[in-house]
Amino acid sequence: MRTFGNIIGNQEIVNSNSAYFTTTNPKDNKPIDNRFYEATLDDLILATQLAQKALYPYSKSKKKSAFLELIANKLEINRDQLISSYCLESGLPENRAHSELNRTIYQLKSFSELIKQENWEITHSSPADELRSPTRKPELIKKRLPIGVVAVFGASNFPFAYSTVGGDTASAFAAGCPVIVKCHPFHAETSTLVARLIIDSMKELDLPEGTFSHLLSSDYVIGEALVNNPIVSAVGFTGSIKGGLALQQIAQNRSVPIPVFAEMGSQNPVFIFESTFKNDNTESLGKKLIASITQNSGQFCTKPGIIFIPNTPHGIDLVNALKKSLHEQEIEAMLHKNIWNNFQQLTSLINEQPGVKQIVSIKDSTFENQGRAVLTEMDFETYISNNVFHQEVFGPHSFIIRYDSENQLNQFITITDGQLTISIFSDNPEHSLDDVFLFECQLKAGRIIYNGVPTGVEVDPAMQHGGPFPSSSDSRFTAVGTDSIERFTRRVTFQK
Amino acid sequence: MRTFGNIIGNQEIVNSNSAYFTTTNPKDNKPIDNRFYEATLDDLILATQLAQKALYPYSKSKKKSAFLELIANKLEINRDQLISSYCLESGLPENRAHSELNRTIYQLKSFSELIKQENWEITHSSPADELRSPTRKPELIKKRLPIGVVAVFGASNFPFAYSTVGGDTASAFAAGCPVIVKCHPFHAETSTLVARLIIDSMKELDLPEGTFSHLLSSDYVIGEALVNNPIVSAVGFTGSIKGGLALQQIAQNRSVPIPVFAEMGSQNPVFIFESTFKNDNTESLGKKLIASITQNSGQFCTKPGIIFIPNTPHGIDLVNALKKSLHEQEIEAMLHKNIWNNFQQLTSLINEQPGVKQIVSIKDSTFENQGRAVLTEMDFETYISNNVFHQEVFGPHSFIIRYDSENQLNQFITITDGQLTISIFSDNPEHSLDDVFLFECQLKAGRIIYNGVPTGVEVDPAMQHGGPFPSSSDSRFTAVGTDSIERFTRRVTFQK
Repeated sequence: MRTFGNIIGNQEIVNSNSAYFTTTNPKDNKPIDNRFYEATLDDLILATQLAQKALYPYSKSKKKSAFLELIANKLEINRDQLISSYCLESGLPENRAHSELNRTIYQLKSFSELIKQENWEITHSSPADELRSPTRKPELIKKRLPIGVVAVFGASNFPFAYSTVGGDTASAFAAGCPVIVKCHPFHAETSTLVARLIIDSMKELDLPEGTFSHLLSSDYVIGEALVNNPIVSAVGFTGSIKGGLALQQIAQNRSVPIPVFAEMGSQNPVFIFESTFKNDNTESLGKKLIASITQNSGQFCTKPGIIFIPNTPHGIDLVNALKKSLHEQEIEAMLHKNIWNNFQQLTSLINEQPGVKQIVSIKDSTFENQGRAVLTEMDFETYISNNVFHQEVFGPHSFIIRYDSENQLNQFITITDGQLTISIFSDNPEHSLDDVFLFECQLKAGRIIYNGVPTGVEVDPAMQHGGPFPSSSDSRFTAVGTDSIERFTRRVTFQK
Repeated sequence: MRTFGNIIGNQEIVNSNSAYFTTTNPKDNKPIDNRFYEATLDDLILATQLAQKALYPYSKSKKKSAFLELIANKLEINRDQLISSYCLESGLPENRAHSELNRTIYQLKSFSELIKQENWEITHSSPADELRSPTRKPELIKKRLPIGVVAVFGASNFPFAYSTVGGDTASAFAAGCPVIVKCHPFHAETSTLVARLIIDSMKELDLPEGTFSHLLSSDYVIGEALVNNPIVSAVGFTGSIKGGLALQQIAQNRSVPIPVFAEMGSQNPVFIFESTFKNDNTESLGKKLIASITQNSGQFCTKPGIIFIPNTPHGIDLVNALKKSLHEQEIEAMLHKNIWNNFQQLTSLINEQPGVKQIVSIKDSTFENQGRAVLTEMDFETYISNNVFHQEVFGPHSFIIRYDSENQLNQFITITDGQLTISIFSDNPEHSLDDVFLFECQLKAGRIIYNGVPTGVEVDPAMQHGGPFPSSSDSRFTAVGTDSIERFTRRVTFQK
C-alpha cells in the first residue's frame, strides 16, 4: 500500500491520524491500493500563508521561465510512471495519456517562451513630454503584474492538461503567481506524482517554499475554504456548471470579491447545412462526427452534443451513416462510476421523453464503467419544447435534431445558452450563409468552426476557449493558449 | 420652463403625465426652471428591445469611427451651450468645464482612431499547416467582438467625461455595442443636450435607431431594472462603493450574470519620504498637494485623501506649508447639496474622534454648497486604530498622518484596501526604497506615481485607471485610455 500526503511548503506530510480516501480503477471499479490523507483546514491555512510569503520573491524571480521548462523536462523524464498512474486512475487509453502529457509539456514550454521575451510584462509605454502646455506630460509605463495567489481545481477529465500543472497552473506560474492546487480526487496519485515534480523543480532552482502547494481532498470543504481564504486572489476551475457556480458565488460573497475563471459546460452545437453534401461524402462526415462524439467516451467539454441535420434525402443518409459508424465504434470506460452513473441516468431520462428515438452502440462492454455511446434522434419541435434536452450530457452522447427549415436554426440560436463552440458544415459557410445567423452564432460561442469538429482544441495564441455564460464564467478570457495568462495578471501603470 | 423627455429610438418623448424631477444650481440650491420626465419601466423595455435590434447592424456598420468623430465635432460646435448648462448644473467653474469637454472630445477621437486601424479587431492569427502530423493544423483567427448591449450610468462628478458620451459610452460604441445611458439626475439637462447630439449624429449617418437611448431617472428603480434586463450584457459605472456593489450584486444574481465595471472609491495614499526634502522645497510641495486636494472641491476619484508625512523637522515644515496653502485656497461649490451634506457630516464625525486636529480653510463662503477644505491631522497610531479614518471622504479633505518610522508605512500598506493610485515622494524612489514596500504598493494600487500628485489622469493607452477592490470591481481592466475597450469586447476564434 502506498501513502500520499499533502504537499505544503516543500514537505509532503502524511498525517496518518487524518481521514483518507482512495482512488479506483474505472475499468473494474476496484479500489487501488493507496491512501490519500485528507487536507485539514490547518493545512490549508499553512499553504496560503506560505503562498503569501512566496508571492514577492517568486514574482520577482528571474527563474520563472527556467522553472516552467524544468517541470516540463521532469514530466518527460518521468513519463512512464506518470502514464501508468494516469491510465490506471482515469481508465483513459495510453495514446490519449501520451498526447495529453505532450500537450501539458507544450503548454509549459509556450509560457516559458512567452515570459522569456524581453519586457513581455510591458503592455504600453508612453514617453514624457516636458514641453506640453499647460502641464508636463508624465512618462507612463503600463506593466502586467501577478494578481496574487491563485487556487486551481484539478479537472477530472484532464488529469494532466487541466489539473496539477495544466493550463491554469502554468499560466499562473508564468504570471508570477504562487499556486495552491486542490487535487481532483479521481486521480489523486497522478496529481501527487506531478506535484512532487513541481516541488523537486522548486528545490533545484531554490525557489521560495510556498510557490506551490498541493492539497488532497475528496469533498467540498477544502475547496470552498480555499476560495474563501482572504489570501487567495483568483481561481481557475474546469468542471460542471453546478461546481463552477458554487465557487463563483463564494468568490462574489467575500468581503473582497475575487475573479473565478470557471470553464463549465457546453452543448457545442453542430449545424449541418444541405450545401455541405456537395463536398462531403455522408459516410466520411458521419465517421468524423461519431469519432468526435465518442473519442475517450466523449468526456470533453468540446464534444459535439447536438447536431442539426436537414430533413432531406442527404440528411437522412447522414443520420444513417452516423448510426452505422456508432455501431463500429469502440467505446472506452468512463472516468469514474459516478460519471458513468450520471451518464446512464441522464440518457435514460432523455429516452423517456416523448418524441425521441435512441440509438445505442452495440459493441460489447469489456469494463465496468463502459459508457454505451448513445444518439438521441428527434425532430426540431420536440427538441425546442423540452428543457430536458437543453443541457450538456457529459459522455458519449449527442442529440440528433432533424430540422425542416433554416428558420428553425435561427430560432434555436436566439434561445440557446452560451457555448464554447459552434460548428458549421456548409459549402463556403462564410459567404453562402445568412449574415445575421452567423452573427448570432458569434454572440453565442467563443469559437466558430467551419467544416470541422470542435474536439481537439489547438494550444495556440489565436485560440479562444471560453464562451458566453454558462459555458464559462467570463467570456472575455480564454483558458487555452498564452492569452490565458491575462486571467491572472492585472495592469499597473508607473507614472514619473 | 423647458421640458426634457427620454430619448428612445431616435425619439425624445415628453410624457407630461409622468412624474418629473428638476435639477438645482449648487451655488444657491435653487431649482433650475426645467422638468425631466422620469423614464418608466415600459420606456426601459422599449429601449432595450431597440438596442437588441441595433446590435447586429450597428456592430457591422463601417461608420462607427465616423460616428465617434461626428459626435466629437457636434460637441465642439455646441460648446457654448453645453458649457453653460454644465456650469449651471454642476457648480464647477468654466475652465474645468472646458478642459473636461476637451478631454471628452479627445476620448471620442482616440477611439475613432483606434478602430480605424485596419484589422484592429484581430488580436492573433495563426495560419493552417496542412502537413502537420498526425492531424492538419487549422487556421485560427481571433477577433474582438462586441459583448452586447451596454448600460452606462452617468457620474455626478464628470458630467462630460464619465457620463452620457464619456469614456464608458465611447469605448462601448467603439467596440460595436449599443448603449443605454441612465443619466445622472444632478446634470440631467447637460446629459440630455449631449444625448440629442448623439441622436443627431446617428440620424445624419443613418445608424440604426436603438444604437443609443437616454433614460431620465432620479431614483434606483430604473438603474436596477437596467442591470437586471436580460438584453443588457455589461455595465459601466463610476460612483460610490455602495452604488457599485449594489449593481454588482444585481448583475451576479441574474440567471445569466454579466460583468459590471464599477470604478468606486479610493483614498489614494501619498507617501512622503524624508529624502524628498533634498529636492523639494516644502512650500512648493505643500502648494502642489493642497491644489490636488482642493481643486474643484476635491471631487475627484483620484484626490489624495491620505498623506503620510515623517515626524521630522522637514516633515513639520511641510505640515505647516500645507496649512498655510490651505488658507490661501479658493474653494468651489460642491456638486449638490446632498454631496455637500455628506461631506460636512463625515468631516464632523472625523473631528469628533479622539487624537485628531482639524484645520479648516478660512476663506469666506460665497455659495451655498461651498465645501470648506479640511485637513485632519493625527499620528500614525491614531489613524491605524480607528476605522472611521479608513474610508474615502469625497470632497476637499485629506488625512495628514505623521509617521515615526518606515515600518509604520509597511504596516499601513499591508492592511489598506485596494486603491486607484499610490503616490511616492522620495529622492530616486525606484532605487532608494525598500523593494518589498514598493511591491506591496503595486499589489494595492492600479497606478504608482513617483514624485507627482494623483489627480490629472492622462488619457493614454499606457494609463491604468482601475485598482484592486474596492477601488474598482475588476482590477484587470481600466476605465481610462483605449485599453478600456476590452471591458466591452470578447474574443471569438474563427477556425477553418
